[in-house]
Amino acid sequence: MTSTAMLSLTGQMLIAGQPVRGTGKDIRGIDPQSGKPLEPAYRYGDRSHVEDACAAAAEAFPAYRSAPIETRARFLETIAGNLESIGDALVDRAHSETGLPRPRLTGEVGRTAGQLRLFAAVLREGSWNQARIDPAQPDRTPLPRPDIRQRSVPLGPVAVFGASNFPLAFSVAGGDTASALAAGCPVVVKAHDAHPGTSELVGRAIADAVAACGLPAGTFSLLYGFGPELGTDLVTDPRIKAVGFTGSRAGGMALVAAAAGRPEPIPVYAEMSAVNPVFLLGGALASHGGDLGRAFVGSLTLGSGQFCTNPGLVIAVDGPELDSFVAAAAEAVAASTPTVMLTPGIADSFRDGVAALEDEAVLIARGSEGDAPAAPCRAALFATDASTFLASKALQAEVFGAAGVLVRCSDAAEMRQLANGLEGQLTATIHADESDHGPAGELLDVLELKAGRILFNGWPTGVEVGHAMVHGGPFPSTSDSRTTSVGARAIERFLRPVCYQDAPKTLLPSAIADGNPDALWRHVDGQLTKD
Amino acid sequence: MTSTAMLSLTGQMLIAGQPVRGTGKDIRGIDPQSGKPLEPAYRYGDRSHVEDACAAAAEAFPAYRSAPIETRARFLETIAGNLESIGDALVDRAHSETGLPRPRLTGEVGRTAGQLRLFAAVLREGSWNQARIDPAQPDRTPLPRPDIRQRSVPLGPVAVFGASNFPLAFSVAGGDTASALAAGCPVVVKAHDAHPGTSELVGRAIADAVAACGLPAGTFSLLYGFGPELGTDLVTDPRIKAVGFTGSRAGGMALVAAAAGRPEPIPVYAEMSAVNPVFLLGGALASHGGDLGRAFVGSLTLGSGQFCTNPGLVIAVDGPELDSFVAAAAEAVAASTPTVMLTPGIADSFRDGVAALEDEAVLIARGSEGDAPAAPCRAALFATDASTFLASKALQAEVFGAAGVLVRCSDAAEMRQLANGLEGQLTATIHADESDHGPAGELLDVLELKAGRILFNGWPTGVEVGHAMVHGGPFPSTSDSRTTSVGARAIERFLRPVCYQDAPKTLLPSAIADGNPDALWRHVDGQLTKD
Repeated sequence: MTSTAMLSLTGQMLIAGQPVRGTGKDIRGIDPQSGKPLEPAYRYGDRSHVEDACAAAAEAFPAYRSAPIETRARFLETIAGNLESIGDALVDRAHSETGLPRPRLTGEVGRTAGQLRLFAAVLREGSWNQARIDPAQPDRTPLPRPDIRQRSVPLGPVAVFGASNFPLAFSVAGGDTASALAAGCPVVVKAHDAHPGTSELVGRAIADAVAACGLPAGTFSLLYGFGPELGTDLVTDPRIKAVGFTGSRAGGMALVAAAAGRPEPIPVYAEMSAVNPVFLLGGALASHGGDLGRAFVGSLTLGSGQFCTNPGLVIAVDGPELDSFVAAAAEAVAASTPTVMLTPGIADSFRDGVAALEDEAVLIARGSEGDAPAAPCRAALFATDASTFLASKALQAEVFGAAGVLVRCSDAAEMRQLANGLEGQLTATIHADESDHGPAGELLDVLELKAGRILFNGWPTGVEVGHAMVHGGPFPSTSDSRTTSVGARAIERFLRPVCYQDAPKTLLPSAIADGNPDALWRHVDGQLTKD
Repeated sequence: MTSTAMLSLTGQMLIAGQPVRGTGKDIRGIDPQSGKPLEPAYRYGDRSHVEDACAAAAEAFPAYRSAPIETRARFLETIAGNLESIGDALVDRAHSETGLPRPRLTGEVGRTAGQLRLFAAVLREGSWNQARIDPAQPDRTPLPRPDIRQRSVPLGPVAVFGASNFPLAFSVAGGDTASALAAGCPVVVKAHDAHPGTSELVGRAIADAVAACGLPAGTFSLLYGFGPELGTDLVTDPRIKAVGFTGSRAGGMALVAAAAGRPEPIPVYAEMSAVNPVFLLGGALASHGGDLGRAFVGSLTLGSGQFCTNPGLVIAVDGPELDSFVAAAAEAVAASTPTVMLTPGIADSFRDGVAALEDEAVLIARGSEGDAPAAPCRAALFATDASTFLASKALQAEVFGAAGVLVRCSDAAEMRQLANGLEGQLTATIHADESDHGPAGELLDVLELKAGRILFNGWPTGVEVGHAMVHGGPFPSTSDSRTTSVGARAIERFLRPVCYQDAPKTLLPSAIADGNPDALWRHVDGQLTKD
C-alpha cells in the first residue's frame, strides 16, 4: 500500500464521527501469504463503546429517517464516490489483509460502490415505500369508510457484522450497510478482525460522507471487538432494532439466539452456510461433460473457494456420460496449486473439513502441495453415492474453501430424492440441454423450495447486483428466507408498514400526500398509479 | 340455531376433507350468557392427527401452489360464498358460543367473506408477486450480465390458530387462513376451544370449497386440541413452514419459542397485546371534551372491550379542558350495565385485571352490577399520573375487556415522554383540532415508531379491511412488526423471493415469462411496467 495511506491508518474506532481508541486486546491484520502481522494495532472496544455508538445512533435516528429521500440518495452516492477516491490504497490494504487478488478487490470496490448507487436509484424510484391510499367513502353503508393510507418507516438503528470473505462488498460499507442506510436506519458496524485496516479506511469514507451531507454524526459508527462479547452487547442493546450478518452458521445462530432472548426480540438477517448443489443432466453431460468438469473446478477454486455460493456439491446420474466430466474435473483439481486463504484460522478449518470428507467419501483428486502460503488452500474433490450422502452429516456440511463432493445417483428419481433431502441453499444449479428439459422441470419444482437462486447452465459464484437478484434462501442458508441480502429488495429488511387513518392533510408524510408530490407509484384503491 | 344446522354438527375434526373423531378430552362450547354447555361434544386430537393433517398438507402443497392464480382466486371466492350460504345457522351458533350480538356476528360473516374476496382481487391484480426481470446484457464489459428474473413462491403449509374474540374473521376462515391460502400455502387450523361448533361449520365450508374447486384435499385441515400439546406439536412439525396466531401474549410467545427451537426455525406471526393509547390534545378537549368522553366509553365498552384494538389508555394534559371529558366518561361508565364476555375464563381474567388496576390507580367510575350474565364484564375507568404509570407494569399491561386508564400529564412534553416510554402498539390515536396540529405533529413523530396504525379523531375499534390497512405493530403488539394481519399486504407473510438465472424460456413460470402472459405489473430493469 502507499505510504500515505499507511500513515493515515490510526488504529482507532469511529463513534459518531470521532476516532476512539479501544481498551481491550490488541489485534492486527495478518498477511495470510506470509503470516506476518500488519501495522497498526487495533484494540477491541468494550461495552461503553457499544453504549456510546448506540446512544448516538438512537439520537441520530429521528433526523436521519426524516431527511428528504434525495438527501439519503446523495449520501449513498457520496459514500460510493469516497470509496472510489481512496483508490489503490484501499485495494492494497485489503490485499495485504486478505490475500485476495488485486483485480478481484478492484472489482469489489466497484461492486460496493455499485450497490450504494443501486440503492440511491431504488430510493428515487420509490416503489420500495409501498405507498397505498384507500380514499374515504363517506357515503358507504352501513358505515362510512375512513381515509386510510400506508407508507413504510425504518425499524431503527441496525447492527451490521462485517464478513471475512468480502472485505468490501459485505463489510463496513457492504450490502447490509447500504440497504439499512437506504431504509433510513443508522448503522453500527462491528468490523471483522480479519481486515481491520480496510475497515478503518472504509469507515472513514462513510463518516466523511455523513459530515459532507450534513447528517447527524451518529448515523454511522464502526467498532472493533470480540464477537461473543462486544457483538452480543451490540445485538442486545435495546436501541438496536435489526441485525445484518454474513458468516458462519455458528456465528449467525448465536446472534439469532441473542436477539430472540431480548426483552424486545428483533429480526436477524444472518446469511450462514450453503453447499450450493449443482445438478448435471444427461444431455448436457453427453454433449460437453469435459467442458463442464473444467468449468466446475474453475468455480470451485475461484477465490480459494471462499464464496457463500461456492459449488461444493455436484449431483449426477452415474454412467458413461459422467466419465468425461469426472476425468476433466479430476485433472483440473490435480493440476491446481495451493492458493492463499483469508486467514490462518480459515485455512485450519478448511484442512479439518477436508479431513472429515476424506473419512466418509472417496478422494477423486487433490491439488498439489507445491509452494504453500501461510494460510494454504489445497483443492479437493471427493465422490460418494446418494444413500451414503444422505446419511452423512459431514458430507452435507459446508466446507468453506475449495472442496467438493460428487454424488453419483442411480437414476433421475434418486437425483430428485436427493434434492428433496437437501437443507436450504443460497443457490442451486441445473446443467441441462434441450433434451433435458423434462427432468430439469421436475427438478426445478423441488429446487424452488430449497434455494433462493436457481441457475441454468452457469456457475453460482458471482452474484449480480441488480433489481431481480435474490441472495438468500431457506434455513440454514439464512435465518430468514423472506428477504435477500443482495439486490433492490434488501431495503425491505429494515422497513415496516404504518398506516394513517383520517390524518389531517398537513400532517401526512409526502409519500402518501394528496397530489403525489414525491411522484411515486402508489396503490390507490388497490391499483398501481402515479396519479 | 336452526335444528337442521344443529343436527348437522358432528363434533368431528376435518383432516384433508375427512371427518375424524378426536381421541382426547371432551370439550363443548359454553353459552357465556347462561353458563350452560352446548351440544355436541368435541374431542381433542392427538399427535397422530397432527401427523395426518401435516402429511396431507405437505402432499397437497406442490399441486396447490402450482394451481393457476385464477383457480386460487375462485377458491377463495367459493369459500366466501359457502360461508354466506350457511346463513343464520352460522350466526346463531356463533352467538350461542360467544355471546357476541347477532348484528355484530352478521357483520363478521360479511367481513370474513370480504377478506377472502379481497385476496382474490389481490391475486388477480398481481403486484403481490413482486415479479422482476433484469434482462441479459450479453455485451456488457468486463462481464456479460445474465438474464435474472424474480418471483415469489409460497413458504409451505401454514398453521393457523383461531382467536376467541373473532370467531369468524380471525378464526378458521379468518385473515390468516385467507392470506395463507392466497399465497399458495395449505392451511392446518387449530380451532379455538371457545367456539368449536362455529369452527366446524366454517371448516366444512372450506373443505367443500376445496372439493368443489378440484384442489387436493390436504389443502385444508381443522383440528381441535390442547394448545400446549397439540398446538406445540403442530408448530414443531417439520412440514409446517409458518404460523399465524391471534391471542394472548403468553400464548403467542410460547409459539414463538416453540418455532425458534425447531431444527429449522420458522416465522411466527403472533398478534398479541396492546393498550392502544389515545392522546387528547387541548384544542379538541376544549371544543368537544364531553362528546369525546362519551365516544371514548362507547369504544371502550364495544363488544365488552374484547378487541385487540380496544382503547385501554387515555393520555391528556391535566387541567380544566379535561374536566368535561372526565365527567362525561365517568357518567357513561357508571351508566353501563354488565355485558357478557366470550368465556367464563376470560371474565375471570378481566375481574383479576381490574383488581390489579385498582391497586395502583384511582377509580373514576365503574359500571353497575345489575343483572349479570355467567361471564360478566363490568366496565371500569381509572386515573393516574404519568410517573406512576411509567413505573407500573400493571398499569401498562393490557386488561382484556372494558377497562381503561386515564393518565393525567403535567404538560405536552410529559405527554410525549410518556409516548416515548410506551411499548409497541397496534394502534395509537390522536384527538386534535386545527389548533393542535403543532403538538400533534410532534406526537406523530413518536407514535410512528410505536404503532402500526395511527388514527386521528376516531376510535381504534373497527379495523377496515382494505389495501392500505395495517393491523400489526412493534413488539409486544405483535411478534413481527414487518407485516400486517389485515389488508392486502398480509399475503407477503407467506411468500419468499426466488430468482432464476438464465432459465430456459420453456421452464420459466408465467409470472416472469417473456410477453407478460399474466399481465402483471413487473419491475423490468428496475422500472414498473406492464410490458
